[in-house]
Amino acid sequence: MRTYFAVLVIGSLLVGVFAVQPEPGPMRASKQQPDPSKKTLLVIHGGAGVLTEQEMKAEGLVRSDFEQALARALAAGHEAVKDKGRTSVNAVEAAIRVMEDSGLFNAGRGAAFNSDGRVELDAAIMEGNMTGQGEGKRDPRKRAGAVTGVAHIKNPISAARAVMEMDGSRHVMLAGDGAETFALGEAVSRRYRIERVSNLYFWSDRRLRHIREEFKKEGAAGGKKSASAATPDHGGSAERRFGTVGAVAVDTDGHLAAGTSTGGLTNKLPGRIGDSPVIGAGTYADDRACGVSCTGTGEVFMRHAVAHDVVARMLYAKNSVADAARATIDALPDEEGGVGGLIALDREGRHTFALSKKSAGMYRGFVTADGQILVAIYAAERPRPINLAPKRQDAKSKGR
Amino acid sequence: MRTYFAVLVIGSLLVGVFAVQPEPGPMRASKQQPDPSKKTLLVIHGGAGVLTEQEMKAEGLVRSDFEQALARALAAGHEAVKDKGRTSVNAVEAAIRVMEDSGLFNAGRGAAFNSDGRVELDAAIMEGNMTGQGEGKRDPRKRAGAVTGVAHIKNPISAARAVMEMDGSRHVMLAGDGAETFALGEAVSRRYRIERVSNLYFWSDRRLRHIREEFKKEGAAGGKKSASAATPDHGGSAERRFGTVGAVAVDTDGHLAAGTSTGGLTNKLPGRIGDSPVIGAGTYADDRACGVSCTGTGEVFMRHAVAHDVVARMLYAKNSVADAARATIDALPDEEGGVGGLIALDREGRHTFALSKKSAGMYRGFVTADGQILVAIYAAERPRPINLAPKRQDAKSKGR
Repeated sequence: MRTYFAVLVIGSLLVGVFAVQPEPGPMRASKQQPDPSKKTLLVIHGGAGVLTEQEMKAEGLVRSDFEQALARALAAGHEAVKDKGRTSVNAVEAAIRVMEDSGLFNAGRGAAFNSDGRVELDAAIMEGNMTGQGEGKRDPRKRAGAVTGVAHIKNPISAARAVMEMDGSRHVMLAGDGAETFALGEAVSRRYRIERVSNLYFWSDRRLRHIREEFKKEGAAGGKKSASAATPDHGGSAERRFGTVGAVAVDTDGHLAAGTSTGGLTNKLPGRIGDSPVIGAGTYADDRACGVSCTGTGEVFMRHAVAHDVVARMLYAKNSVADAARATIDALPDEEGGVGGLIALDREGRHTFALSKKSAGMYRGFVTADGQILVAIYAAERPRPINLAPKRQDAKSKGR
Repeated sequence: MRTYFAVLVIGSLLVGVFAVQPEPGPMRASKQQPDPSKKTLLVIHGGAGVLTEQEMKAEGLVRSDFEQALARALAAGHEAVKDKGRTSVNAVEAAIRVMEDSGLFNAGRGAAFNSDGRVELDAAIMEGNMTGQGEGKRDPRKRAGAVTGVAHIKNPISAARAVMEMDGSRHVMLAGDGAETFALGEAVSRRYRIERVSNLYFWSDRRLRHIREEFKKEGAAGGKKSASAATPDHGGSAERRFGTVGAVAVDTDGHLAAGTSTGGLTNKLPGRIGDSPVIGAGTYADDRACGVSCTGTGEVFMRHAVAHDVVARMLYAKNSVADAARATIDALPDEEGGVGGLIALDREGRHTFALSKKSAGMYRGFVTADGQILVAIYAAERPRPINLAPKRQDAKSKGR
């Protein structure tokens, strides 16, 4: 609730209070009727583990590069969901595609390398809708789709969506070559704008430097050590080790969707699957509770089924979305250099950011129903309003 | 609780009540002190979706083939956990290895084929221990390991265990070639008795017949239809479509472990990952609640994070293991020809079987602390005592 009121306050300062009809949905524990134009429609993250401003400088980047990338993702997602009839799943996909393409985050272009010098990408998407999409609409069902270990798909989030939607949702999760064969089939790739790219497309100067430094540190044992022994890597900043992008949205029908996309852990073993594509670990949505997307040390998030845990606390312990998210993150083991955070959004448009104690920050932001975009990076910061730069300024020539 | 008393009653009829010390652990809602020799140490399943006795006959099998296979798995698991100092994870691995080797279940030898004529296997294992294995023992952690899409590993459950235990649990889940490279490395394969086999090792006459019939039914479109379109297959019996093996055990230290192994859905797309290897979906363990292993339509179990949902209901809604399992299964959508069931066990040795309404049965059984083995197959049956056949009678020459 605190976050929600912060949104209200900041929003009110910025644009004044619009005269609107009272909110029809149930607003538990809220005495005043919130302004529906200030509801959060979409909340996103670009990963826990952030660069300090000094580290940005060393990479040829500045703070506003990240702020603008987040704002562009929020604007794209807002455009996809703001009107009646648009769906939250459109917003999640649109926002994540922008982040996958930006080159700034550990997802899509600019993702981390594995221990064998390849970029292998994971993504998942899920709908909270319990009423089903079928003709009868009798079967309650929460559709979900995920891909893991894809190396030639420009926008893995769209491949995840294809897995979710095509063929009556027969499968939820596809890996590796099987996932690529499915997603790059003619009908699927056209419908979901899925493009085949060389693995080189994902390579950035930054990540290439990171992985080559890691490899040298481990000793040039012909890749043997990293391929078979998987030495834990506690060196380097969190930003070097992990990162993710994610989004949660609610549409005018009150349906939630959540999605996550990542290149995974830097120097991970080939074939390693993290939490992002695992329904219940890094990604989950349930209209009765909330949508969740996580970022951090994937192995911890998997073992604690973090995304589903937030939903379960709302359903069974009757927590609010903010309390559930906080409790779930606080219950995680305080692993060295690890853990991370999550974003969550309930169907009343209340969002929350939860970060583990030792995390320095999380690239994050949200957009309200009336299009106000707010963004933050470091842990202690409150989100602040961002105006989209008139000229599209991306990282194409920066930090790559 | 009902199941637990059933165990007590049946057990008492069989062997009489041993004079023992009162149970030290908390026995919620139980007025009488249960007999610790009657605690369940290990509960297993060989999949929901069972053959009718007529179908068994047509496959050259009889009921006692399945009963004996389950009993052998229970005996092996009991041997691995009955004494002080042995661990529940040993019991789970031992029981599942027997079922993987038996040729009777959809796991290891005799597993189902995918839509491209390959056997691709998934497995997961997890410990409920919250106190950690490390030196400091300060970090609470629930270790877990999983492999997916392996095609040359005789016992996938042991590969999952290696992922869990080796190298400080850096990774939880490995897929495909990456998983095989890791598991078949010299140090890992020796320590975990992991054997490389040809994909042909897994092929059985039965499953080969099934997949060739499926392929003919779909029209001999050069494999195109099944490779790219993933037509839902609602034909055939549940036994033809899915199956799994799983085990949950508790050791004398009160630590739980759960594991699951499967060949997945018959005619699945290459690269499809089901619920079995997904921590939180098909497999989960938490000492504060219970261990769970699922079987059924994997996609439904993933979307509902079934294994973690049982644990969450115990933790947050304060349900008993039997009530939590029942509530979770009852909340699943009643999909055509689908769904399935689960086994669960809490640290007091109370186990439960929960099956969805339309499921005809589940190969299942449990063993008590004093070594009593009880087994059941069809939905309405109560588990009955089985004596291990003196001469090892396996399915090597039967139904293959």
